[in-house]
Amino acid sequence: MTRVQDVYPANRVSLREVGLRDGLQMVKTFPSTAAKQRWMREEHAAGVRHFEVGSFLPASTFPQFADVRDMIRTVAALPGAHGIALALNERGVNEALASGVAEVASVVSATEEHSQANARRSRDQAIANVKRLCELRDASSHKPIVNAAISMALGCSITGPVDPNEVVKLVEKCLEAGVDFVAVADTVGYAGPKQVEELTKAIVKLSGPKPVCIHLHDTRGMGIANASAALDAGARILDGSLGGLGGCPFAPGATGNVVFEDLVFLCESKGFDTRIDIEKLVAVRSILRSEMPGEPLYGGLARAGLPGRTTTREQVAGM
Amino acid sequence: MTRVQDVYPANRVSLREVGLRDGLQMVKTFPSTAAKQRWMREEHAAGVRHFEVGSFLPASTFPQFADVRDMIRTVAALPGAHGIALALNERGVNEALASGVAEVASVVSATEEHSQANARRSRDQAIANVKRLCELRDASSHKPIVNAAISMALGCSITGPVDPNEVVKLVEKCLEAGVDFVAVADTVGYAGPKQVEELTKAIVKLSGPKPVCIHLHDTRGMGIANASAALDAGARILDGSLGGLGGCPFAPGATGNVVFEDLVFLCESKGFDTRIDIEKLVAVRSILRSEMPGEPLYGGLARAGLPGRTTTREQVAGM
Repeated sequence: MTRVQDVYPANRVSLREVGLRDGLQMVKTFPSTAAKQRWMREEHAAGVRHFEVGSFLPASTFPQFADVRDMIRTVAALPGAHGIALALNERGVNEALASGVAEVASVVSATEEHSQANARRSRDQAIANVKRLCELRDASSHKPIVNAAISMALGCSITGPVDPNEVVKLVEKCLEAGVDFVAVADTVGYAGPKQVEELTKAIVKLSGPKPVCIHLHDTRGMGIANASAALDAGARILDGSLGGLGGCPFAPGATGNVVFEDLVFLCESKGFDTRIDIEKLVAVRSILRSEMPGEPLYGGLARAGLPGRTTTREQVAGM
Repeated sequence: MTRVQDVYPANRVSLREVGLRDGLQMVKTFPSTAAKQRWMREEHAAGVRHFEVGSFLPASTFPQFADVRDMIRTVAALPGAHGIALALNERGVNEALASGVAEVASVVSATEEHSQANARRSRDQAIANVKRLCELRDASSHKPIVNAAISMALGCSITGPVDPNEVVKLVEKCLEAGVDFVAVADTVGYAGPKQVEELTKAIVKLSGPKPVCIHLHDTRGMGIANASAALDAGARILDGSLGGLGGCPFAPGATGNVVFEDLVFLCESKGFDTRIDIEKLVAVRSILRSEMPGEPLYGGLARAGLPGRTTTREQVAGM
């Protein structure tokens, strides 16, 4: 049995690499299983400990996650590493539980409209699925951590603005259903830091001793500012993807996660010890570049490196 | 006589387009005067009112600013627009005053090492130059606004970390010298939001009724987060450049300003009415692309557009 406080200690920030799942959701070419395993192992060597490794969705629709069981075995073999897999219905939940994955993630849409359009079910049905997941977890031998993410929680691609009170109600229902923690997702990158701070504060209060995860997309350049606001408001789990993988400049709605390496720099600059080596982390981008040459990668740290003394004389008159 | 409170009202955020000066400091090809005028006019039509238009530095070294007087005339002719020019020594200051520009900007390096290496003078000499600038302003007929920017205030390319107490002392000296306001610059993009917030709070307190400007570079992806922190700490003047112009992925030390259009989005999301039309602003990037095809442009708003309802059905299982 995995205790949530052991995996996500309350006195530290846990940064989760979600590039192997969310980052690969919409890419045009898929990295091989071997490449994904190298990506994970090299990030692990850089100090990363939390990996979303895939999803239990039909492999016919999402062939990039057909190897999810291999990935779960790989992450389980890495010392101190924690694997997360997404499951959206009872079939997927059963498969996830059978796989022995350490954490199962589920999703509830913040708006009825998006829930119907995206998952062809009501929000109540999604909550019932979360409840069933918790029951099956309780009946399982290894009792993985269960989280529920509220997607479109800070803006919806269908309805536009989202009432934060609706999100709070859904979070309450997920907590009542027995999840170990709730994640709040700005799925389409609508929010600014004020909105993130206000919602995070409310969810942190509701969650009590349970941790809170904020899952941000950098669609409009607000990702790091929003992550900073989430930390200020008490969130201690943040998601990101190496190079901000998942973004696509040509497809509306295809929006990258927050750049993982910049997120590490942010946390360190705010005094949180991430135990992650940024330079080693940046070096892992070479795997993404060679496996997915068509995907744009983002990030300031990869461009500029860590701050340090330089021997270059600055040009006269800079400000 | 231009009153600083009229140009930078205390109850609003003033966003300054510095791409026409700082953004052009290190670019490889220079836009024509006509293109720069179009850039300024179109941004003015989008609602931008504050423009740094050039510098009074030797045209032999900085040919891109040889037309600074034309640019000053252009900005002066735009209703409600405010022009700023940089001057670093007494010759430049005299030329700036003679040009009739509405605001003269000067620079003091935060560290003795950078002051000597960059401007071949001590910080005391730089402060004396600021004092002389204020005296010449007082003796002038049109009495432009004068600001002093503390460069390398949040990290120095030569010394690395910078003692905030040193910055505070320099700010005090500049205020005593008679500047209308002080700008604090993260010239090489070393800072995170915590550091920005702490220093900004100290400078806002010191400045009393005078406004405070924070000038940020997005070198390590922290630009918008730092701008958000600066606003939280009471800064009401922020600098940026369209498309983050000024950055260069290949040259260490060449670091772009904060992306202007993302800065507008940030401010609006925090409840500040910028009176700037983001979509019109983003459209002005076409001038930069055609005039400087080799320069990378950054920014989330240009990539994703403003948030809005979409008719695209999201792919199943996004988070």
